[in-house]
Amino acid sequence: MKKLSEEIAHYLQRLFPLNRSLTGEGNRETLRIISEIAPVRLFEYPSGSRIYDWMIPDEWHVREAWIKDSSGRILVDFLRNNLHLMGYSVPVRRTMSFAELRPHLHVHPFLKDAIPYHTSYFKKQWGFCLSTEQLESLFSPEGIYEVCVDSELKPGSLTVGEILLPGTSQKEYLVSTYICHPSLANDNLSGILLTALLAREWATRKRNFGYRFIFVPETLGALAYCANNEAAVKDLMGALVVTGVGGPGSFSYKQSFQKEHFLNGMVEDTLNELHRAFLTYPFDIHGSDERQYSSPGFRINTVTISRDRYYEYPEYHSSLDNLEFVRPEYLLSCYEAYLRLLEKMDQNLVFIRTEPHGEPRLGARGLYPETGGGSGPNGMERVSWT
Amino acid sequence: MKKLSEEIAHYLQRLFPLNRSLTGEGNRETLRIISEIAPVRLFEYPSGSRIYDWMIPDEWHVREAWIKDSSGRILVDFLRNNLHLMGYSVPVRRTMSFAELRPHLHVHPFLKDAIPYHTSYFKKQWGFCLSTEQLESLFSPEGIYEVCVDSELKPGSLTVGEILLPGTSQKEYLVSTYICHPSLANDNLSGILLTALLAREWATRKRNFGYRFIFVPETLGALAYCANNEAAVKDLMGALVVTGVGGPGSFSYKQSFQKEHFLNGMVEDTLNELHRAFLTYPFDIHGSDERQYSSPGFRINTVTISRDRYYEYPEYHSSLDNLEFVRPEYLLSCYEAYLRLLEKMDQNLVFIRTEPHGEPRLGARGLYPETGGGSGPNGMERVSWT
Amino acid sequence: MKKLSEEIAHYLQRLFPLNRSLTGEGNRETLRIISEIAPVRLFEYPSGSRIYDWMIPDEWHVREAWIKDSSGRILVDFLRNNLHLMGYSVPVRRTMSFAELRPHLHVHPFLKDAIPYHTSYFKKQWGFCLSTEQLESLFSPEGIYEVCVDSELKPGSLTVGEILLPGTSQKEYLVSTYICHPSLANDNLSGILLTALLAREWATRKRNFGYRFIFVPETLGALAYCANNEAAVKDLMGALVVTGVGGPGSFSYKQSFQKEHFLNGMVEDTLNELHRAFLTYPFDIHGSDERQYSSPGFRINTVTISRDRYYEYPEYHSSLDNLEFVRPEYLLSCYEAYLRLLEKMDQNLVFIRTEPHGEPRLGARGLYPETGGGSGPNGMERVSWT
Repeated sequence: MKKLSEEIAHYLQRLFPLNRSLTGEGNRETLRIISEIAPVRLFEYPSGSRIYDWMIPDEWHVREAWIKDSSGRILVDFLRNNLHLMGYSVPVRRTMSFAELRPHLHVHPFLKDAIPYHTSYFKKQWGFCLSTEQLESLFSPEGIYEVCVDSELKPGSLTVGEILLPGTSQKEYLVSTYICHPSLANDNLSGILLTALLAREWATRKRNFGYRFIFVPETLGALAYCANNEAAVKDLMGALVVTGVGGPGSFSYKQSFQKEHFLNGMVEDTLNELHRAFLTYPFDIHGSDERQYSSPGFRINTVTISRDRYYEYPEYHSSLDNLEFVRPEYLLSCYEAYLRLLEKMDQNLVFIRTEPHGEPRLGARGLYPETGGGSGPNGMERVSWT
Repeated sequence: MKKLSEEIAHYLQRLFPLNRSLTGEGNRETLRIISEIAPVRLFEYPSGSRIYDWMIPDEWHVREAWIKDSSGRILVDFLRNNLHLMGYSVPVRRTMSFAELRPHLHVHPFLKDAIPYHTSYFKKQWGFCLSTEQLESLFSPEGIYEVCVDSELKPGSLTVGEILLPGTSQKEYLVSTYICHPSLANDNLSGILLTALLAREWATRKRNFGYRFIFVPETLGALAYCANNEAAVKDLMGALVVTGVGGPGSFSYKQSFQKEHFLNGMVEDTLNELHRAFLTYPFDIHGSDERQYSSPGFRINTVTISRDRYYEYPEYHSSLDNLEFVRPEYLLSCYEAYLRLLEKMDQNLVFIRTEPHGEPRLGARGLYPETGGGSGPNGMERVSWT
Repeated sequence: MKKLSEEIAHYLQRLFPLNRSLTGEGNRETLRIISEIAPVRLFEYPSGSRIYDWMIPDEWHVREAWIKDSSGRILVDFLRNNLHLMGYSVPVRRTMSFAELRPHLHVHPFLKDAIPYHTSYFKKQWGFCLSTEQLESLFSPEGIYEVCVDSELKPGSLTVGEILLPGTSQKEYLVSTYICHPSLANDNLSGILLTALLAREWATRKRNFGYRFIFVPETLGALAYCANNEAAVKDLMGALVVTGVGGPGSFSYKQSFQKEHFLNGMVEDTLNELHRAFLTYPFDIHGSDERQYSSPGFRINTVTISRDRYYEYPEYHSSLDNLEFVRPEYLLSCYEAYLRLLEKMDQNLVFIRTEPHGEPRLGARGLYPETGGGSGPNGMERVSWT
């Protein structure tokens, strides 16, 4: 486990700074690095493709983005933290007053020292995210600022990664994680890394069922994968969405939409066996890609085991969700739970009797005491020999 | 509401004295007067028609009916109160002793000053109903009495009234009330009048569903209507039976045979929203025409909102169920409840997604924040701006 | 009841000593004697017949079986108690040391003075059962013993008894008891006798349904009967397995596999009406022939009323389950319960309306007051006559 822990630390360091988004090179680079752990096959779905009710937008690239004051000093710089630039910001290069700039500056609602995370995938606008401390110390109402967003939005594609592990049976499970968040460690670099490690280990196991491990931009990427694998997705036995698995919080799990589904029981057994106290969140329509997999067209029961879950920890969607918050040992504890859950899922076999009339003859298979009678239900079991 | 209240008072006065029964001119005249409120279409089902397990009997007419003492003084007179004559009495004109007359005289079991209400639709007999006070003060065991029932039973028809209000959808609801009781104000002149007022108001509304308002003699009239509209009745979404809506008692409702049917919930919501305390009667096989609509051949869930419900108020089926007992303001309170219930019933729409795969794209319909990320489940919702 | 009690005592005495087993003359003789009570039809299913997953073995006969010490004294003798010989023991005639003999001697695990009951239907071996007291006082480690099992295993047949009582309806119930235990009084001579008495009484009753009373060797006999009456068994409305009905213990019943099945409610009503406190055992897969009738190929809900139930009383499967333990009055108390249960089962009639639309016209069948109205739900019912 020491080695695994070091490996996790190594990949967290390399993957954290990449500028992941709905599309773009940051996503491809992430999947390339992940492929060192377990080989990921990449699929590209072109901009403009219609995905059910949705459409894949142009691909986004950023070269640089900053704000300078009138003295030429850089106040906010995308190259220092990619959270500083609102995701999918359109290009701008102009000098402007603070009054004009202010509506484009976003701060965190309650954390003074955190850069918030914002995107604008579908409305063409630009914006910078910064801490309240930065806003208050670096800017003045009378200032004049030079703003540069050297970005590009042009036809390209949305990238999805897949690891397919076939089983003896044609039936399959899905393990899904999302790759669209930039420098946020728990949400969801932790999920990406855990899913890759899980796929590598699971590839070495003898499997009853098939498994699809996928790395998708949330919502649209999940739907693009579904649309391009529709029959397989509709036939899934169940799904896992891996997210929020790197922080120090208590274990929790989100139930699938059918409370009585076997996956929920298996998660509970798993966490109980590991002596993990846990919170149970009933299914609701907010959350991650279980929103898509559970929709009426698919109806795949989907569960999530997390430690610090989206929405619920203060550092969520801010620059404080970083490599100080996430630690390898936390991620390992969730890895252990997911692995045990997969083991249970793979044993979910149902056998049907070929001869349904009466009891099978256990004795003929050496499964019954040779001497009958005695004082217990199974022949000799209560009998001792003097 | 003042005007509506006066209108109710007016129609109660005009309709109360009519000699309604299973068949006959009293029923037709009632429906003609009701047509001044909302145009009712009349249907005549001929005597002798087989209606499922039943048969429409001859039509009944009464010219006069009285008992005179030996001095020629009229002791009991149908023209003063049509309850004095047992419904469907066959003709008789004869002088007889008290001993012979007595078995034909019916009094109320516990109200000394009330004329009871009795009928004999299927057994050919005659009878007079009178108060215990009348019986004790006007008759003597030694008296000789002249008895006249100038009635006629001959082939004719059973009359049913209908108001059809189509909706956008082909699906329909039924609103049913019964017209077979003579001078009884709460049971069920109140129901007849409320139903007519409801139909008039409802005709002015934009409707999602179609509505059948029907005015039928109880049991046989309801079944005759069902038999002549069988496909439509079997396809109903639900039904209301309007009865006991003019007295001072507390609100109550009778549930449909499926406790979980949406109509029951809608009635409860209606009465709660109107701040009406109410009793809940579970479905049982006694009652009014829900007995027919709920029968295995139709299985239409049917509810009733009442104030003084049949069986439960002392004046029930007696001459004390009169225009002193029923008042316009009570009837209006029930009208208000039925109208609100209809409004709920008409909103009982179920929409089915045309694109069932994944979430609909709310942003494309202006239903989602333009800027994503942030710290709450719906994008920006937990974000404030400094 | 005095007479019935004496009759029970008589048959217990005659039937107790017979050497019943999976097959053989003891079973046939038992059924011949039982036929004095109610005529039983015997069916023979030949050795070697395949019965679903099972096979009917050779028939077993015993002439004599004993162990003598070197002085020629008989220490253990089958003729004194057939429990002394392990059921289906193969022949042996040899002198041997105690060391060689010991593995063939079986004692009870906790009752020192009881002979245990053992069988070896499918493994070819021989054995003697004796009390710990006998073992300790009669045998010595240095002794030399002459052993004789004069038995024979040869092709024959398995015997099943049936009493068919037809009913008005084609639908049937099953009453099943097992005949394969030798001198054990409660388990299950009591069941055999009760079943015969029940069949005799039930034959005198007017029956709505048909009844199959069967006397079968447990497990294989039950399955052989099922296989030879498969369509009828699959169509059964329910079944009773009669066992453990002769001892002093409290009443109990074992539920059928569907908790909500009407048989369970009927048993509870029966025992409550008889003011019998009782234990309820949920269905489980151990037990008697409900194991076969409840199996997926048949799925017949089966209940058992017992007093001292298999496994649960110390004397179970030992020589102490004898005629001191079982008494006619106990057996009679169970007989009373089973009889009442049959009465309830026979009233389990479901009528379907031929005319499902609306209410049936009760008046036309003389089932409704001739005069309607009045103040109660059924016409005149609240009306009195002065």
